[in-house]
Amino acid sequence: MRFWSDNTASACPEIMAALAEVNHGRVKAYGVDAWTARLDGVFGEFFGTEVKVFVVATGTAANALSIATLSPPYGAVFANPEAHIVRDECGAPEFFSHGARIVLVPGPGGKVTPNGLQAAVEDNPPTVHTVQPAVLSLTQATEFGTSYRPEEVAALSDVARRYKLKVHMDGARFANALAFLVCAPAEVTWRAGVDVLSFGATKNGALAAEAVVFFATSLVRDFELRRKRAGHLISKSRFVSAQLLAYVETGVWKRNAARANELARRIGTAGGGALMHPVEANEVFLRLGDARKQKLRAAGFEFYDWASERSGEARFVVSWDQPEEDVTALCRALAAS
Amino acid sequence: MRFWSDNTASACPEIMAALAEVNHGRVKAYGVDAWTARLDGVFGEFFGTEVKVFVVATGTAANALSIATLSPPYGAVFANPEAHIVRDECGAPEFFSHGARIVLVPGPGGKVTPNGLQAAVEDNPPTVHTVQPAVLSLTQATEFGTSYRPEEVAALSDVARRYKLKVHMDGARFANALAFLVCAPAEVTWRAGVDVLSFGATKNGALAAEAVVFFATSLVRDFELRRKRAGHLISKSRFVSAQLLAYVETGVWKRNAARANELARRIGTAGGGALMHPVEANEVFLRLGDARKQKLRAAGFEFYDWASERSGEARFVVSWDQPEEDVTALCRALAAS
Amino acid sequence: MRFWSDNTASACPEIMAALAEVNHGRVKAYGVDAWTARLDGVFGEFFGTEVKVFVVATGTAANALSIATLSPPYGAVFANPEAHIVRDECGAPEFFSHGARIVLVPGPGGKVTPNGLQAAVEDNPPTVHTVQPAVLSLTQATEFGTSYRPEEVAALSDVARRYKLKVHMDGARFANALAFLVCAPAEVTWRAGVDVLSFGATKNGALAAEAVVFFATSLVRDFELRRKRAGHLISKSRFVSAQLLAYVETGVWKRNAARANELARRIGTAGGGALMHPVEANEVFLRLGDARKQKLRAAGFEFYDWASERSGEARFVVSWDQPEEDVTALCRALAAS
Amino acid sequence: MRFWSDNTASACPEIMAALAEVNHGRVKAYGVDAWTARLDGVFGEFFGTEVKVFVVATGTAANALSIATLSPPYGAVFANPEAHIVRDECGAPEFFSHGARIVLVPGPGGKVTPNGLQAAVEDNPPTVHTVQPAVLSLTQATEFGTSYRPEEVAALSDVARRYKLKVHMDGARFANALAFLVCAPAEVTWRAGVDVLSFGATKNGALAAEAVVFFATSLVRDFELRRKRAGHLISKSRFVSAQLLAYVETGVWKRNAARANELARRIGTAGGGALMHPVEANEVFLRLGDARKQKLRAAGFEFYDWASERSGEARFVVSWDQPEEDVTALCRALAAS
Repeated sequence: MRFWSDNTASACPEIMAALAEVNHGRVKAYGVDAWTARLDGVFGEFFGTEVKVFVVATGTAANALSIATLSPPYGAVFANPEAHIVRDECGAPEFFSHGARIVLVPGPGGKVTPNGLQAAVEDNPPTVHTVQPAVLSLTQATEFGTSYRPEEVAALSDVARRYKLKVHMDGARFANALAFLVCAPAEVTWRAGVDVLSFGATKNGALAAEAVVFFATSLVRDFELRRKRAGHLISKSRFVSAQLLAYVETGVWKRNAARANELARRIGTAGGGALMHPVEANEVFLRLGDARKQKLRAAGFEFYDWASERSGEARFVVSWDQPEEDVTALCRALAAS
Repeated sequence: MRFWSDNTASACPEIMAALAEVNHGRVKAYGVDAWTARLDGVFGEFFGTEVKVFVVATGTAANALSIATLSPPYGAVFANPEAHIVRDECGAPEFFSHGARIVLVPGPGGKVTPNGLQAAVEDNPPTVHTVQPAVLSLTQATEFGTSYRPEEVAALSDVARRYKLKVHMDGARFANALAFLVCAPAEVTWRAGVDVLSFGATKNGALAAEAVVFFATSLVRDFELRRKRAGHLISKSRFVSAQLLAYVETGVWKRNAARANELARRIGTAGGGALMHPVEANEVFLRLGDARKQKLRAAGFEFYDWASERSGEARFVVSWDQPEEDVTALCRALAAS
Repeated sequence: MRFWSDNTASACPEIMAALAEVNHGRVKAYGVDAWTARLDGVFGEFFGTEVKVFVVATGTAANALSIATLSPPYGAVFANPEAHIVRDECGAPEFFSHGARIVLVPGPGGKVTPNGLQAAVEDNPPTVHTVQPAVLSLTQATEFGTSYRPEEVAALSDVARRYKLKVHMDGARFANALAFLVCAPAEVTWRAGVDVLSFGATKNGALAAEAVVFFATSLVRDFELRRKRAGHLISKSRFVSAQLLAYVETGVWKRNAARANELARRIGTAGGGALMHPVEANEVFLRLGDARKQKLRAAGFEFYDWASERSGEARFVVSWDQPEEDVTALCRALAAS
Repeated sequence: MRFWSDNTASACPEIMAALAEVNHGRVKAYGVDAWTARLDGVFGEFFGTEVKVFVVATGTAANALSIATLSPPYGAVFANPEAHIVRDECGAPEFFSHGARIVLVPGPGGKVTPNGLQAAVEDNPPTVHTVQPAVLSLTQATEFGTSYRPEEVAALSDVARRYKLKVHMDGARFANALAFLVCAPAEVTWRAGVDVLSFGATKNGALAAEAVVFFATSLVRDFELRRKRAGHLISKSRFVSAQLLAYVETGVWKRNAARANELARRIGTAGGGALMHPVEANEVFLRLGDARKQKLRAAGFEFYDWASERSGEARFVVSWDQPEEDVTALCRALAAS
């Protein structure tokens, strides 16, 4: 019973069907195909505004390319210390941006707070001797499985605007956040001040498909060139675009995310006092102690230690394809231990 | 009837079947899966030597990551002016290598020649004021659809070794070259001095799958980190690895390549005196003149102008899935025009 | 009466004399001159070991080039948050290293502590997903005017070695530290585990001259190429090398530093309870409050607010050429206020 | 008798005097001094238009920083194959620009020609797959000691503008070109379409001082940050600015250049049929053959082989401080051999 991560999941039937469906004939490569052509329209409807959409194969590429388009090489990017761009991308933002610096802004539940952001920016006053404040990067849902409310995003964007920062949102688990918040996609993105969104599908049922959604469309030519230059312009683009179309149009994004969230919620409830963060997506963090962790593992539950082996903390991620009986068994085991 | 490029083709049934086959259950991400684990062995057998294999989703990533691992930022990379790394990657080698310079070595048929290489290296003597000769990059088959013979690769590697250059091979159409040469994969790679090979599958029937094959295995840790940092470590890695396993193990690489080559050969023969380069892979270059090109297009044949609109030259690429009747029709039209 | 910074000072007579002395005839450029040739020997004697010395014109270049030679692009560089490489170089380390990340290790008095270092490295375990621990960078004297004792450097190097980090020392005020510690240069550098030292002269009486001293001499070819590529190989090199020779050989390094330190010590004593850090070089930090600061300024004392305008803190830096009466006046004013 | 290069020369008395003159008191560092403040005005008058001027210590820094400000990382920079940025800077333009590519445009006398430029740009049509034409870089005087006439620069700028290229001029020997052309500085720069000029003084009598002159002043903030980040913001900036003020205001730029040009002219005349390029600055290229070269060396003349040891070609560079008797002796020896 594996609760490692949602990127260990399989691809869902709608996605596989979409691949099969577009797999015929010779069509132009590198994004000049009929499916890619539909992306702007489909995502525009999803977000209720004009957008420019680009597809890539990984979330790291989506994040780092977005940041490189928003920040000069001498820029500062503000993010929570737990953010994927900080801990899990081997310095991809620095690579793509040619050396921008990530400035850490700690905050509870893996979130950036307006006060924290303001303090961090003020601590980096833009003289010629310092990196220049450029980007705020938020993770939605966060690495701790919490979700920013629309008004939280808006408040952060307000601070960002005051200092002329662009706002990037890492939405590797965007669907999970949406499913939890039950709000329109627009409300937590462009209406709340987001300029560019990494819109993930891979973790929630796609095979390998991420969209970069530009609400501020003036920057897109630079993005296109950076994407090509980084080897992220997929030649047989129809196969990635088709995944994203299916993901949005069939509503599978919502079905998969809502299911995983609900199962995660049950685990959180079963965790009781051990719960470290509110469950607002498909991740559950529990402070179990080594003995309980060992016991769970002996019972066949597989999950990652959080932060370190010695912390006594554990992370459980529910995938879209998680068997319900795994979750039921885990809840029972947690209650019993 | 589309002869645009082999990356406009669909994915072949064996590849699609492989995707379906691995699409079950939750397995570790980022290359820690059973399918990825088999790659070194399967490719080792294919090449008859110990290798380290890494998968990426695009040929540009395969090439640029390889070069970045082989060259310091102040290195010089020697390549034919027609090479994909020169003309079609928006400066990816420069991006990944942090500014290495590509030094052009012209030669007939899109090939580098030993004399040309030697002259170019001698023209860049390594003082502290100059970029330092670092890598020879060969394209097999070349952009003009010609293939290096094993002894040609060996002669070039000899020159390279004399100047301490590493040897990279861009094998986006490696299968087509192999199918034409009818030689063991080892003969045109490590036995002839190649250190790292970009082994393409996408153009020859995969959906999106390229392998970087290290014969010089000491460099691989650096490669792994650069790949991750560049956003090219696919999370659901089983889906890329499965394509490559199927591609090699089912022999589809050979079947597809041999078929495309044979169809291209027929077009070349039909082209007669207009043929610009010997057909040694799946590409045919014809000097047709504008009138003949227009006539062919009016008859429903779609293909790219070569080099420029005004050159009168045309490129026809045969895909693995090209209908035989397209080719027959094209041959007839060429004969008639 | 200006206590802004030691880089606001003039150049001392010995340095100016050295410039005049070498200013004759046509001699080879780019470091192939008789004066540059003597650097390795003169510095080797100074440090009591074999060294390779390279000259540059700025401390930022010295630091960033050193770090770029010691760290891969995906490396992590550990430093105190107050370090010049963090706060005052507009991201130069990231630029030169192609995106290495500076990981902050807070500690009292602007120092890194062994425990802090260990915790920071442990928090960045080198998996393929993370930046790879590569360099420890220490500032001697620190930005707070404190100096690492030889045993402190050795203890930090021990931790560094355990994790395979290289050790860099930013010695923009190295002479001031030495003059305070009254120890052999070897004791706080190579004998204590330092691999590369940025040896500053500009702040302590030179016009523009910094030496990069390699104790680990295997890395120097890479450094030389990076220096040239960064535009830091001065053509008329004799003029920079002559400054460094005069600086070391005439003992002006010690005379200037000892004088500035002694004057700073007096200010520190006068500061009494307002003193924020022990005075172990030529800088004095005082928590004066806004009213006292304003009064001092009205009396003609010029100095920088520390950290921010609102902090109430002030930094006084004594230059090698500071008139003694400025200091006497300042001490009197501090005692009176 | 040394004819190696003009950067082997000493610094001229006016420059040394200027250093001495500013060497007093504590003044703000990093360009916030009274001398640096005067640069815009003095150069504005020199060029007859509003300019923004920045000082650096080397010509490589001046060139590479200029280009990095004018080109995106995915840009193409067009230059003659003999240009300093191509042959003598160890890839500095690539480093500073984060990987822009230099596209070679051959032409007689080390010059770019309008036709050559147009052909090269047309060969790099800006699709998403290619580097994007961004900058034309001209060398004035060229590496072969020829000088672009104002109308030549204007014609090249016309082509550049048509393709939206910015125009950079490497003026390491700008004074020599001006002294030869006997034209107003404006005529070969902004009036002829130049956006940014690397204005060299080091080769013509300064110690180490180069100015970057922006005629298109909108780009300067980016330049300033890149300069700092590259370690090229000199702390004791008065010493560099003072050199440039003296260089321009005392007219030493003209005196030194005119003298060197005239002596070079004599050598060119003495060279007779061996002369390879018209002498339009302070460099003379002679095709002497090995025997004559050896004979000259035996007679005490020191000079560099051109291009290679085996070419039989020689380069003689006259410095501002070249003893006239050296030149007289050389002319005699050339006539006699």
